Amino acid sequence: MAHKLGIIGYGGMGAWHGDSVAERIEAIDVKGVWDVREEARAKAAAKGLVVYQSAEALLADPELDMVTIATPNDFHRDLAIRSLRAGKATVCEKPVTLNAGELQDIIAVAEETGKLFTVHQNRRWDKDYQIVKQLLSTGALGNPYFIESRVQGSRGAMHGWRGHKLNGGGMLLDWGVHLLDQVLNLIDSPVVSVHAHLFNLFTPEVDDNIKLFLRFENKVSVLLEMATNCFVNLPRWHVSGTGGTAVIEDWACNGRLVKLNQEGELAWDDDIVYTEAGPTRTMAPRPEHTTQVLPLPEVQPDWTDFYKNVVAVLDDGAPLLVTPQQALRVMRVIDLLFESEKQGRSMECLI
Amino acid sequence: MAHKLGIIGYGGMGAWHGDSVAERIEAIDVKGVWDVREEARAKAAAKGLVVYQSAEALLADPELDMVTIATPNDFHRDLAIRSLRAGKATVCEKPVTLNAGELQDIIAVAEETGKLFTVHQNRRWDKDYQIVKQLLSTGALGNPYFIESRVQGSRGAMHGWRGHKLNGGGMLLDWGVHLLDQVLNLIDSPVVSVHAHLFNLFTPEVDDNIKLFLRFENKVSVLLEMATNCFVNLPRWHVSGTGGTAVIEDWACNGRLVKLNQEGELAWDDDIVYTEAGPTRTMAPRPEHTTQVLPLPEVQPDWTDFYKNVVAVLDDGAPLLVTPQQALRVMRVIDLLFESEKQGRSMECLI
Repeated sequence: MAHKLGIIGYGGMGAWHGDSVAERIEAIDVKGVWDVREEARAKAAAKGLVVYQSAEALLADPELDMVTIATPNDFHRDLAIRSLRAGKATVCEKPVTLNAGELQDIIAVAEETGKLFTVHQNRRWDKDYQIVKQLLSTGALGNPYFIESRVQGSRGAMHGWRGHKLNGGGMLLDWGVHLLDQVLNLIDSPVVSVHAHLFNLFTPEVDDNIKLFLRFENKVSVLLEMATNCFVNLPRWHVSGTGGTAVIEDWACNGRLVKLNQEGELAWDDDIVYTEAGPTRTMAPRPEHTTQVLPLPEVQPDWTDFYKNVVAVLDDGAPLLVTPQQALRVMRVIDLLFESEKQGRSMECLI
Repeated sequence: MAHKLGIIGYGGMGAWHGDSVAERIEAIDVKGVWDVREEARAKAAAKGLVVYQSAEALLADPELDMVTIATPNDFHRDLAIRSLRAGKATVCEKPVTLNAGELQDIIAVAEETGKLFTVHQNRRWDKDYQIVKQLLSTGALGNPYFIESRVQGSRGAMHGWRGHKLNGGGMLLDWGVHLLDQVLNLIDSPVVSVHAHLFNLFTPEVDDNIKLFLRFENKVSVLLEMATNCFVNLPRWHVSGTGGTAVIEDWACNGRLVKLNQEGELAWDDDIVYTEAGPTRTMAPRPEHTTQVLPLPEVQPDWTDFYKNVVAVLDDGAPLLVTPQQALRVMRVIDLLFESEKQGRSMECLI
């Protein structure tokens, strides 16, 4: 029998969950929603969904065994705890909470109730990330040492409630939580140092253009950038390994892997670049014939694996893919990144 | 009457100084050289230059009033001090010394003798840097907040003596001193935090692939990268300002400045990018018609201004362009960057 899902918060993401689950996840029926806004409730009703009278009413429906929370971030903690106590398997939108402490409160209740709790870190199923994951796991780049991951837009201010501090807005919580979740799952080593440069250029209350500089115990260096005022984008990913460089330009995953050619020809006839101010041998461009350009690996990530995994955990005791402890690790890094900006220095850790 | 220049160290850079001064600086005659290597002396002799028997002999020539030092870096301090004490106006190759303390020793002697001392920070006359300088000084980008400056090659190990610690090799001293000198002269604010991630991937003794993360008191964030194993280069410069983005792709200074169009049209009809794993409004690409693409400003830097300035200081009491104090500021930052890597954290400062 299909699981029955209720959705709390039926804005852009809540509706996306509802539609995507209805269309793509056979084992889950989307039964109904609650949203504080009348227009959101009307939108749900128009789709034939049950519209509950309150969050309480939704959580009190014994037919629902799963709840997805897609409200503004500041409601996640309390709703998740109430949902778990109501006996529901609970999926929470990201960022799971405003800080690690709030998530620990949820985790305590999840352990107490024995109910499933997970976070919709959906960007683990983005194709660009999966390509990088495959490049690293197959050793196609040798040992990675520099990783740059960026999302650059140009809309200026953060949108809607994401512009407000009270709601847990800002770029570090909005996109930072994705890019951090990705790299923390990409590199099998603890984070030992985090450093944030945060700007609130167009959004007075919260950070909107940010750079994060991380180091892992295995020495890998990661630069993350999130921008709302960038008019010439850098690649989505730029990964340097001892054996070559991989670039993913954009969401469409145009890109390439470039390494030395099969003769392993490192040196070439000495040439020197002369600029007005002097020569450089070190930075002279390499002749193309000494390299090979390879296509990026083909990957076909399937986002439905997120909800299918939730079902498999409930039905078959499968291991959970996005665990509360993974989410806690990300939130601990985010707490330190905010502290880094506040103190104007890096924060050392072992996370 | 022309000034007479002697050159100590006649390798790649020493010969470049000799040839360039001879061809382009009328007010300076290149008289002779000293180099410890016979083949370098033979090369100088073949060009009709006087070949001295030793550095002492060169410094003892009363006809020389200027000396350029282009030896490996570990000889700079002692030779500069001896040159100043011998009464010569002294030009030193970069990095001026191995650390700030050595430079302070030189500065003390320069003050004691009253002789001119300057550092060949030639890349202040690179076209790419001058373009960025003009963009920032004219406010074409609004207020800058993110600056990325990179030089990326793929030769692997550092070349020759630059691969040895004893000689003051490594990328931070070799190219770091250029990129730092540039940004320190670009941003009119003290450095308050520096953070280095240094790798010695192909050069056992010294750093060869490095990232530096700097913050200024006015909040400007700077990322510098120097690489010897990069097969897909990122732009030489990527500068984000509140009013637009400028990119300089390469040494040839291909690039552009992109900003909102003249209607200042920030918003556009709502569109959302859907990847496999979900939607994003924040990072949806901006339609081209809402932006304008402008050419980079035309600049014509003239490297000969470096030596012409030295002449003008000597003959007319003009102010020195590359001052020992500027070089000291860079060396203090470099000392902290090495310490940053050693301690695995950022170093706070007010430099």
